[in-house]
Amino acid sequence: MWSKNIVNFIGCDSEYEEADIVLYGAPFDSTTSFRPGARFGCQAVRAESFGLETYSPYQEKELTDGKVFDSGDPELPMGSTEESLRMIEERCAAILADGKLPFLIGGEHLVTLGAVRAAQKKYPDLAIIHLDAHADLREDYLGVKLSHACVMRRCWELVGDGSIWQLGIRSGDREEFRWAGEGHVQMSPFGLQDAKAAAEEFKGRPVYLTLDLDVLDPSVFPGTGTPEAGGVTFSELLLALLEICGNAQIVGCDAVELSPHYDASGVSTATAGKVIRELLIALANKRN
Amino acid sequence: MWSKNIVNFIGCDSEYEEADIVLYGAPFDSTTSFRPGARFGCQAVRAESFGLETYSPYQEKELTDGKVFDSGDPELPMGSTEESLRMIEERCAAILADGKLPFLIGGEHLVTLGAVRAAQKKYPDLAIIHLDAHADLREDYLGVKLSHACVMRRCWELVGDGSIWQLGIRSGDREEFRWAGEGHVQMSPFGLQDAKAAAEEFKGRPVYLTLDLDVLDPSVFPGTGTPEAGGVTFSELLLALLEICGNAQIVGCDAVELSPHYDASGVSTATAGKVIRELLIALANKRN
Amino acid sequence: MWSKNIVNFIGCDSEYEEADIVLYGAPFDSTTSFRPGARFGCQAVRAESFGLETYSPYQEKELTDGKVFDSGDPELPMGSTEESLRMIEERCAAILADGKLPFLIGGEHLVTLGAVRAAQKKYPDLAIIHLDAHADLREDYLGVKLSHACVMRRCWELVGDGSIWQLGIRSGDREEFRWAGEGHVQMSPFGLQDAKAAAEEFKGRPVYLTLDLDVLDPSVFPGTGTPEAGGVTFSELLLALLEICGNAQIVGCDAVELSPHYDASGVSTATAGKVIRELLIALANKRN
Amino acid sequence: MWSKNIVNFIGCDSEYEEADIVLYGAPFDSTTSFRPGARFGCQAVRAESFGLETYSPYQEKELTDGKVFDSGDPELPMGSTEESLRMIEERCAAILADGKLPFLIGGEHLVTLGAVRAAQKKYPDLAIIHLDAHADLREDYLGVKLSHACVMRRCWELVGDGSIWQLGIRSGDREEFRWAGEGHVQMSPFGLQDAKAAAEEFKGRPVYLTLDLDVLDPSVFPGTGTPEAGGVTFSELLLALLEICGNAQIVGCDAVELSPHYDASGVSTATAGKVIRELLIALANKRN
Amino acid sequence: MWSKNIVNFIGCDSEYEEADIVLYGAPFDSTTSFRPGARFGCQAVRAESFGLETYSPYQEKELTDGKVFDSGDPELPMGSTEESLRMIEERCAAILADGKLPFLIGGEHLVTLGAVRAAQKKYPDLAIIHLDAHADLREDYLGVKLSHACVMRRCWELVGDGSIWQLGIRSGDREEFRWAGEGHVQMSPFGLQDAKAAAEEFKGRPVYLTLDLDVLDPSVFPGTGTPEAGGVTFSELLLALLEICGNAQIVGCDAVELSPHYDASGVSTATAGKVIRELLIALANKRN
Amino acid sequence: MWSKNIVNFIGCDSEYEEADIVLYGAPFDSTTSFRPGARFGCQAVRAESFGLETYSPYQEKELTDGKVFDSGDPELPMGSTEESLRMIEERCAAILADGKLPFLIGGEHLVTLGAVRAAQKKYPDLAIIHLDAHADLREDYLGVKLSHACVMRRCWELVGDGSIWQLGIRSGDREEFRWAGEGHVQMSPFGLQDAKAAAEEFKGRPVYLTLDLDVLDPSVFPGTGTPEAGGVTFSELLLALLEICGNAQIVGCDAVELSPHYDASGVSTATAGKVIRELLIALANKRN
Repeated sequence: MWSKNIVNFIGCDSEYEEADIVLYGAPFDSTTSFRPGARFGCQAVRAESFGLETYSPYQEKELTDGKVFDSGDPELPMGSTEESLRMIEERCAAILADGKLPFLIGGEHLVTLGAVRAAQKKYPDLAIIHLDAHADLREDYLGVKLSHACVMRRCWELVGDGSIWQLGIRSGDREEFRWAGEGHVQMSPFGLQDAKAAAEEFKGRPVYLTLDLDVLDPSVFPGTGTPEAGGVTFSELLLALLEICGNAQIVGCDAVELSPHYDASGVSTATAGKVIRELLIALANKRN
Repeated sequence: MWSKNIVNFIGCDSEYEEADIVLYGAPFDSTTSFRPGARFGCQAVRAESFGLETYSPYQEKELTDGKVFDSGDPELPMGSTEESLRMIEERCAAILADGKLPFLIGGEHLVTLGAVRAAQKKYPDLAIIHLDAHADLREDYLGVKLSHACVMRRCWELVGDGSIWQLGIRSGDREEFRWAGEGHVQMSPFGLQDAKAAAEEFKGRPVYLTLDLDVLDPSVFPGTGTPEAGGVTFSELLLALLEICGNAQIVGCDAVELSPHYDASGVSTATAGKVIRELLIALANKRN
Repeated sequence: MWSKNIVNFIGCDSEYEEADIVLYGAPFDSTTSFRPGARFGCQAVRAESFGLETYSPYQEKELTDGKVFDSGDPELPMGSTEESLRMIEERCAAILADGKLPFLIGGEHLVTLGAVRAAQKKYPDLAIIHLDAHADLREDYLGVKLSHACVMRRCWELVGDGSIWQLGIRSGDREEFRWAGEGHVQMSPFGLQDAKAAAEEFKGRPVYLTLDLDVLDPSVFPGTGTPEAGGVTFSELLLALLEICGNAQIVGCDAVELSPHYDASGVSTATAGKVIRELLIALANKRN
Repeated sequence: MWSKNIVNFIGCDSEYEEADIVLYGAPFDSTTSFRPGARFGCQAVRAESFGLETYSPYQEKELTDGKVFDSGDPELPMGSTEESLRMIEERCAAILADGKLPFLIGGEHLVTLGAVRAAQKKYPDLAIIHLDAHADLREDYLGVKLSHACVMRRCWELVGDGSIWQLGIRSGDREEFRWAGEGHVQMSPFGLQDAKAAAEEFKGRPVYLTLDLDVLDPSVFPGTGTPEAGGVTFSELLLALLEICGNAQIVGCDAVELSPHYDASGVSTATAGKVIRELLIALANKRN
Repeated sequence: MWSKNIVNFIGCDSEYEEADIVLYGAPFDSTTSFRPGARFGCQAVRAESFGLETYSPYQEKELTDGKVFDSGDPELPMGSTEESLRMIEERCAAILADGKLPFLIGGEHLVTLGAVRAAQKKYPDLAIIHLDAHADLREDYLGVKLSHACVMRRCWELVGDGSIWQLGIRSGDREEFRWAGEGHVQMSPFGLQDAKAAAEEFKGRPVYLTLDLDVLDPSVFPGTGTPEAGGVTFSELLLALLEICGNAQIVGCDAVELSPHYDASGVSTATAGKVIRELLIALANKRN
Repeated sequence: MWSKNIVNFIGCDSEYEEADIVLYGAPFDSTTSFRPGARFGCQAVRAESFGLETYSPYQEKELTDGKVFDSGDPELPMGSTEESLRMIEERCAAILADGKLPFLIGGEHLVTLGAVRAAQKKYPDLAIIHLDAHADLREDYLGVKLSHACVMRRCWELVGDGSIWQLGIRSGDREEFRWAGEGHVQMSPFGLQDAKAAAEEFKGRPVYLTLDLDVLDPSVFPGTGTPEAGGVTFSELLLALLEICGNAQIVGCDAVELSPHYDASGVSTATAGKVIRELLIALANKRN
């Protein structure tokens, strides 16, 4: 009768041992240059997930039919970026070692680097599909290399040319676009129309899917540190994600940059939760 | 010279006796399961209506050319659902008895049940057109039958099979969608493209129109208790409402689930007010 | 390694079996007449408790030296007051039956009635010390008897004359003050200077302590549904609580009416958490 | 049965003809130099007054035992200061002509000038008691003479030396303090301890009481355009107001500078309402 | 080493003498009839511009390649409309006299009148392209002629028939639409599809471009005093502006009606900044 | 005529060369463990300082009579604590080298370490007076030594036993209070009554004054990351600061931990500005 007080993402009630997918959070935003707060994203989306149904009328499937365990968050030391990344990598590696799919909820985008480090160690030919408003391809930011603004450049150093496809990008400095144009990464700016092409390009390779939720238009997702007008709608994002999950072999996944306090209406958190629900159902379905 | 301090919806300055349409509010949200606040909807939309014009460039008509009386709100006892519904039914029945069209502003969606009870007593063959993000077809919610999540099921018990058309639905549990699929109600999920078809289906029958404003996308209507990404735009809603009002014989109407405090920008309240203005102009025009 | 994601009040990490005090929440606000939101109080104060230390420099004691278990919240059905009170009573009775002290976090003030019902069944000579801005002594509110505005009148029906001492009251209707003046309850308005006197008055009787946090001045506790200027400071409240805990035999306790969304600064939630920490330390110390 | 939708200040339900006191609002803030929004004060305090009781435990009297009529607000043209002042003066003069006490709710502080113009015409020997954080004694502000920052200087031009007592002042420029020090006005800075002295000083003269609510400490009244730390508590203000009402012959009164949107918690509006309730009860009691 | 603390719009670091474009702000909103706050627009958009990149992936150009000087804001006297307009006109005239393009950031829409007065004096055959949700064509507003609701009527008095093209209008009273229909101005309601046509219509004439940002849908731009549902998307606005800048000879420009405090998420300010960046790049490119 | 757009703290318009006091900001909060946002403090307090007068009625002196230069903020790299501290130290050392008093506005409290490093190098016998709600004496926080929660421990490592006096402390873990009790630092908990004693204790030694603004009660200063109920009033703080400035030889100073976004009312920022104004006037007066 006396269970403790548990706040999981709704419907993620599997035990760890039997789970196919394992959620984990990374409440970290120490390198955010403009407006912090992404550290609150993972706990907010869990708490607010209880306003969601577990059934998807889009996919006509139930989240509770999948087997998802929510492992909570490691306690990350703000102010120590490298140690925080090490703890994220450790959690991700342990999940991968048990043959489960790690699903990370941020936190700022730099947390992806911890997860990609683990995934790339297990899958040396890892490819990455990246949905985002921002290119995140800087060599450094004010001299700092471990910054959210550099995360895809750091990932590229791990996976190399021809292994990253960026979708929806609509912001960056001139140098980032120039460097991308040299062919190090594939970039489809502004929209997600190439989502299926990206999935098919990496057919046969294990794929890490990193979703910076600010790829959504700020009208539907204002709760983020650096909102960029001109983004995609929820329906466009949902379609792209279902195409990616349906056509690529996803071995790891994240959804980052929800900064819930910037949107007092709660819409951003509810929308992030709905996106995560749809991703979990789509991924669980692939594993069965 | 010394009238009292009156806060009506803008342009609704007719006397009761000469009015064709009578506004009334239902400041009630006791059964809201997730985030309360819809009780503040009716007063907020009146106060903020003074930021609107009374002229519609869409219909090229004036609200003040119609005859609308705003009768204010009954004082509903929070914590007593049945008594609150009884008071709403009483108000609606009195308006109907005088040959006028009752227009209810919520409050949570359960308030519709009071109005539909009155309308169905006067019009035994009543049909219902229902615009909403949520199916609201549960048999009960945590054991409670008089809940916002069950309101359309309770309405169905009054009007029976073949009498409800739901538009825009994008959330519900698996059982609600299964039950709807058995044919008890007609459901057009996700969009409003079947609005005209619904109006024509019920041609010759008196129609109650219930509008849960959360059918709108949360980008334009964040001020609601349970925002659901993937909704319709204002323009799509306006078009659907004009098609319904133009093709169906509306005998009662409501607009519910504005929860103004969740949207500090005031956009949700302003948008609700604009929708109500357009509905009032369209309905007043039909009566003349 | 893989514990689930748990959000307890900070430092309340005992197992149930060994605990002296058991926390439980009641996320209920259906009868709130003015501004709802107290349902969010218990979860908010847990989540934000991690901004607190577990050490009290006031009492020079550690919360973790006590044995407190946080049992989470029952899932209360909004819209069904009687069923919600039954579930609260059941939880409280079970804790009392195991010889532990139940500590309830609201929720609106009506939830106290569920706990007092359980406590009075176990302790027929129960007395109540009540700190509040509002008298809560109405016979009914808009015809509803189970209302937050009537909760102390309902409690009085259980414990009878001479068993309730009210402190800090500064709001009520004329009839409530008149009725109190007849001697049914002892009322010390405006301040808490009689806290020790109340504790000593009930020496030898089991005492239920109910703390409506709006007894605090709204300057330090704005996050509540019905803020009343002219309240007490945190230091005055702390002193009174320590005097009560030190001089009375507390057998049950609650802290209610935190409505966190009305105070975006988080101060109200942080202050509620600090008050609860001090109460827990004081009560745990008495049990040891 | 079908009254219009009326939003008066709670308990102010007398008819005009029989009223002793007449409320009127001035939703004007065009000259505010720093942060506008006081225009919303009068409507907000009416709407939120329904969270108050009509009974005062401080004075042990009922508001509804007095006879107060709420006449609503004139529609003031933003951008035309002189015309707005003319309309305020006209309303105040009409109330005075009928032998009633005009009670103005702002709006910014400049609106007081309209009322004082009317009162000084009827009572040429008018004195003014002024509670405020700011001296408001500038000759002009950026060249503008009809500015909130100059309102008491403009009033002084009407009533002359020895007719204004300022209480609680804690902000102004060097010149304002120097000019006051020349003896044109009596100034008691920082606190309200001289409230009774001021009332007695003007014994035998008709007194206009102008209360800038920002005399309160921003901790209890943050909802104002120019908050100034170091103000008085609610209890200190209440005591001062009761002493003034009890010892002076008040012929006109106002409470200004509530800017409700700056305090989302609603505490400022609730506190303003409570102050107004206490003033109305005290003034009504004097008239009977 | 010790420069003072400077807050310019990002990338606008040219010296005045070499600049092609000169930014200036007008922190004025005294005539706003509904919700004030546009006075904070110009400073907010500068401060938040540091969340933007200076590179436009839409135009594939750098803002810092242009030569823009940010001259700050004149100190406008709230409460004195005519003096404020005079100061705006003076600033604009000085910039024009030096052969530079003046770019005004509001403030409410009335500030445009100051700039248009200066521009029309230099260019007697000035034409105006006007993007807005509101017609702003009233003869007066509550008797006031210098009101935001009348600004285009006042501009028309300067430039005459056949010189104003309005795009995106979706609100006004019946009289405004009737007057526009008489041919005094060209009005393309609801959308921006005629942007290119407007630019070509005025080919050979100097054009002032006035952008009321509330032409955007409130979903993406809630931070404005009078939000109107049914507006254009960021992408539609960007396309229209690039067509106008590419096909018309712009001699002056403004962007007005950002009221940042109504959108706590910061999205409105960020979007305004992005629109201004794109306009500056497009205009600077034409000048080179 | 064409100066750039400058946002200094009000009244700090001296040139660097002639200044006695130099303001500088440190927009840094990377090590904040609970709620970030202090990075916005220094710019917010400058922008909002224009709601203040430059005259102090408390000290009866003018800020503009002093000679203060506002040098703006270094661009600190979020995510690199050591580099950020190095830049702060560099700025502080340069100011000290020119014989001026450096006045730092935070940012989180860790920024003090940069300034104290510079001050202690110039003044090896430096003493520190520390006003704060929190002891900040941890050896490390989650393994991180350069954390806001450890800043006074790091300072102690520089200045040694008998050189730090802490005032107002009301939060910390058991170990911090124990360690302080060993005599490494002098601690006067809860209140500021020992301010004068501290100043006199260090007579003859150069003193660095570090003011964590959360020593104020959260009622008057809610805009901070970790609000702690039970703090001091503005008047108590002002008195203490004037006693310290009057009796100690201050060689460096800071005011930290304003996190303006947590207090949408603006009161916290206004109060911080007023405290800084009073400090500047008191310090400038000592230098002349």
